[in-house]
Parts: sequence; structure tokens; C-alpha cells
Amino acid sequence: MAQPTSSTLTFPAPSATLLSPYLPSTSSHNRPFLTLTYATSLDATLSLTPTTPTLLSGPLSKSMTHYLRAHHAAILIGAGTAIADDPSLNSRLEGAEIDRQPRPVVLDPRGRWAVGGGSKVVSLARQGRGLGPWVMVMEGVDVDGEKVRVVEGVGGAYVTLSTNEDGRFDWKDVLDVLWKEGVTSVMVEGGGVVINELLSPRYFGLVDAVIVTIAPVWLGREGVQVCPEERRDGEGKKVAVGRLRDVRWVPLGEDGVLCGRPKMDE
Amino acid sequence: MAQPTSSTLTFPAPSATLLSPYLPSTSSHNRPFLTLTYATSLDATLSLTPTTPTLLSGPLSKSMTHYLRAHHAAILIGAGTAIADDPSLNSRLEGAEIDRQPRPVVLDPRGRWAVGGGSKVVSLARQGRGLGPWVMVMEGVDVDGEKVRVVEGVGGAYVTLSTNEDGRFDWKDVLDVLWKEGVTSVMVEGGGVVINELLSPRYFGLVDAVIVTIAPVWLGREGVQVCPEERRDGEGKKVAVGRLRDVRWVPLGEDGVLCGRPKMDE
Repeated sequence: MAQPTSSTLTFPAPSATLLSPYLPSTSSHNRPFLTLTYATSLDATLSLTPTTPTLLSGPLSKSMTHYLRAHHAAILIGAGTAIADDPSLNSRLEGAEIDRQPRPVVLDPRGRWAVGGGSKVVSLARQGRGLGPWVMVMEGVDVDGEKVRVVEGVGGAYVTLSTNEDGRFDWKDVLDVLWKEGVTSVMVEGGGVVINELLSPRYFGLVDAVIVTIAPVWLGREGVQVCPEERRDGEGKKVAVGRLRDVRWVPLGEDGVLCGRPKMDE
Repeated sequence: MAQPTSSTLTFPAPSATLLSPYLPSTSSHNRPFLTLTYATSLDATLSLTPTTPTLLSGPLSKSMTHYLRAHHAAILIGAGTAIADDPSLNSRLEGAEIDRQPRPVVLDPRGRWAVGGGSKVVSLARQGRGLGPWVMVMEGVDVDGEKVRVVEGVGGAYVTLSTNEDGRFDWKDVLDVLWKEGVTSVMVEGGGVVINELLSPRYFGLVDAVIVTIAPVWLGREGVQVCPEERRDGEGKKVAVGRLRDVRWVPLGEDGVLCGRPKMDE
């Protein structure tokens, strides 16, 4: 049973109502419902530098994140974010007991994440305030035995998966593994590499809902940007990479939250 | 007297009410009230390429632009935008007769803009649907006599101004010239170079209001991006370039419109 903490968050009901059409619904496609969510500046930047966790959005947006986490079966991030942020990856929403906690999933093909007893995600799992992480590594990678022991000790696991020639997982494989483990919804939170990959034409169709928070700040050049690879039509003409349909803007404190679904086939 | 045209636009009163606190007010600082306004994609991109005018925002956002134009004494753009877009730079808002039309101002230090009888801004001025443009060029630049004749023929003018060592005008000089000519408010519409310059610490304090329209689309890499130069604090640490205060998000069709004022001294 989770300990009550002073840092428990609540998300206002009117805002929750506006978001509700975008929450995971029963998946009809034999893979988890995938929500892509992230927060950027007005210059589409996630953080000042790859190693500087940058608080962009306000307190209400933070509550929204924890609300969304409590409505997904898993939260997924890339290894770069796990390393830079030492994230909690649990939900601090009021009433989010252990049965409402999402499974943390870290995509870490090369086994770079130095997870240990001091990692927040491990510490929270030990306190019964979150689940043990699943760490996806590429086949043949040599993962330190101590890391495996720590992760398995809190109910997590190392999972091996084959990679493409560029050393990246295929998102269909990732979702397949999660689906087979009974994960019906996953919230992808970043970082830049993961987000830009899911926005690419190859994977955009796997995304069911997008929730983007935009903070009224400009971070300037040389930060980590959301900017997917360019796309060209059959005649080589540059075209938009992706669009959203069923769009709704939800003002949240000083931030703007955009909800939508990928618009395919244009 | 303007001819009624089928392309006249109206802007819904409820949206206009939400924008009203950000419209130009009497200037107390002996320079024009400066509104910075632009439309980007979710990846902070203004256009697919520097020479591809890219329609990002929806019809309501277009009406908003024309509403804002009717509430400013001048509209200012850089030469790159004038060359790429051949913009109209007038207001097609219903009821925006010639006395409500803004003065088009083009910053064209090197006199690159090939303005002629076929340019939209000239054609509209001849029809009484807009004012003749003021083109700011650097001192000593040789402007083709025919261009001067065309511009002056529709009530516009070439204005010479000194430049910095990098060949750019100082924004204080630009505003000074406009103020002396009786221009009490100016709406800066782009393009990328002009916007990024006004967002830089050197000039951000000259901006009175910011109105950014964000469309639910990603354009991908290698476009024209809003991304001002990075900023560092006294200890060399990277910090945010600029923030807004008095923020309001106005959903407008599928677009989100962010209004605010520069937050200084942080």
C-alpha cells in the first residue's frame, strides 16, 4: 500500500473531461493503444541541452502528466532520458494506488542505463509506489549482473529484442512484446529521439493519440528539438511530415495542451 | 473607396474579445507599440523551405490576421518574405476601408525586393485597397529608378537607414523612423530572420505583445524555423531566451493562438 505523501497531485475535473476523448480505449488492432505525449517550448525544444532536465511547463501540466500516467498500463522512455533525468515514471495522482501504477519501460538497446538501488524508479518500486521497470536491450548485449539483480528485485525485467541495422528497435516489435505481456496501453514520454521516430511516416500510424504541452517560453538554438525527418512526395517535393485530426486545445495554466489523433493517408 | 470583394473576411466577436487585451494601446515609450505575430507548425517551422509559402493555419486564423492588421498602423516584414510570398499586406477585414489599412513596411537593406506593377501590394494600393509600401534600404544602396517610381506612384517611399556592421538595421532605428512618421503601432509578421532577431535578448524588450498561431502539423527538418540564438547567464550556463507573461491561449478552429507579453528581467 502506498504511503500518503505531501506530493500527491490532483487534476481538475473540468480539464480531465476535456482530455477524456483521448484516453486509451479498447484496442482493436492487437497492439497497445499508444499515446505520444511531450512538452516543448515555443521553439519546439524539449530541453536546453541533452543532459539538462528542463522544467518547461507549469504545475497543472505536471498534474496532467500524472493523471495520464494513471490511465495507461505502461510509460515508455528512451535510455537517453532515463540517464539524463533519473525519472520517477510513477503516478503521484491522488488515489493512484499500486494497482493504478503504470509499468515503466525503458528502450535501452545498448544497455547504457546505469540503473541501481539509488535510481528513483527502483526506490519507488521498493516503497510500493511504482512498478519495477522493464528494460529492453538488444540481443547479445552484455548487461551487468548487478543491474539485472536490482531490476528483477523490484519486480522488473530485462527483455531482449532484435534491432534494425541502425541499432534501433522496430516499434512494431516493441509494441508486440508489450501486447504479449498484457499491456493494453502505453504512454510514450520521450526523449527527442523516440518522439521524432514516432512522428516519422514509418511509425506515425502506430500512434493512437497525441498530447503535446506547449509552454510560453523560447529556449534557443542547440537544444533537444522535436523535428522529425523531412518527408517528400512521389515527385520529390517536400511535404508536411504529419498532421493531427480531431484536434482540441486545452489551456492549462500558462501552457497550451494540444490533443489529437494522427491524420493518415494524405 | 474600396470595392466590395467576395474575399472579405469577418472575425468572430467572441474570439476578438479574447484578443482585445493584446491590441495596441497608447504608447508611453515614444516608439510604436510593437506586436510580433507569426504562425508555425508544432516543430516551430514557418515554411517547408525559404522559398515555399506554406499555408499552415486554418481559415479562422487567416481572419484573425486580417483583424489584427486592421488594428495596427503598419505591418512589417523582411525582404526575404516579400520576395518569397509576394504578400498583399493589406486587411481584407469587412469594413476595413482605406482609413483602416496598415502601412506596409519592408526591411530590405540591400534593395533586393523586385517590387513592380505586378506586385500584389502595388496592385492593391492602385485599387484603393491598401497603402503604398515603405521600403527601408541601407544608406548608399543603389535602388533601381523604376522601382522607386512604382513605389512612389502608389504613395509609398524608399527610406534610407544606416545598418550595423552585420548589414542589419538596428530595430531601435527602424522604430524611430516609424514613430517620427506618425506610426503608433506596428505588427511584425516575419519571416524567420526578423522573428528570431526580435526574440533575441537585445531586442525582446522592444516587443509589446506576441501573438503566435500554432497549427497541428509537423513540417520536418530543413524548414525555416523559429529558433532564436541561444542565451547564457553570467556563469556561462545556458538559459531560456525569452518568456511570456499575461498569457492567454485562444483555440481558433484547429489552431491554438497564444497571446502574451515579454517577461523581462529574469
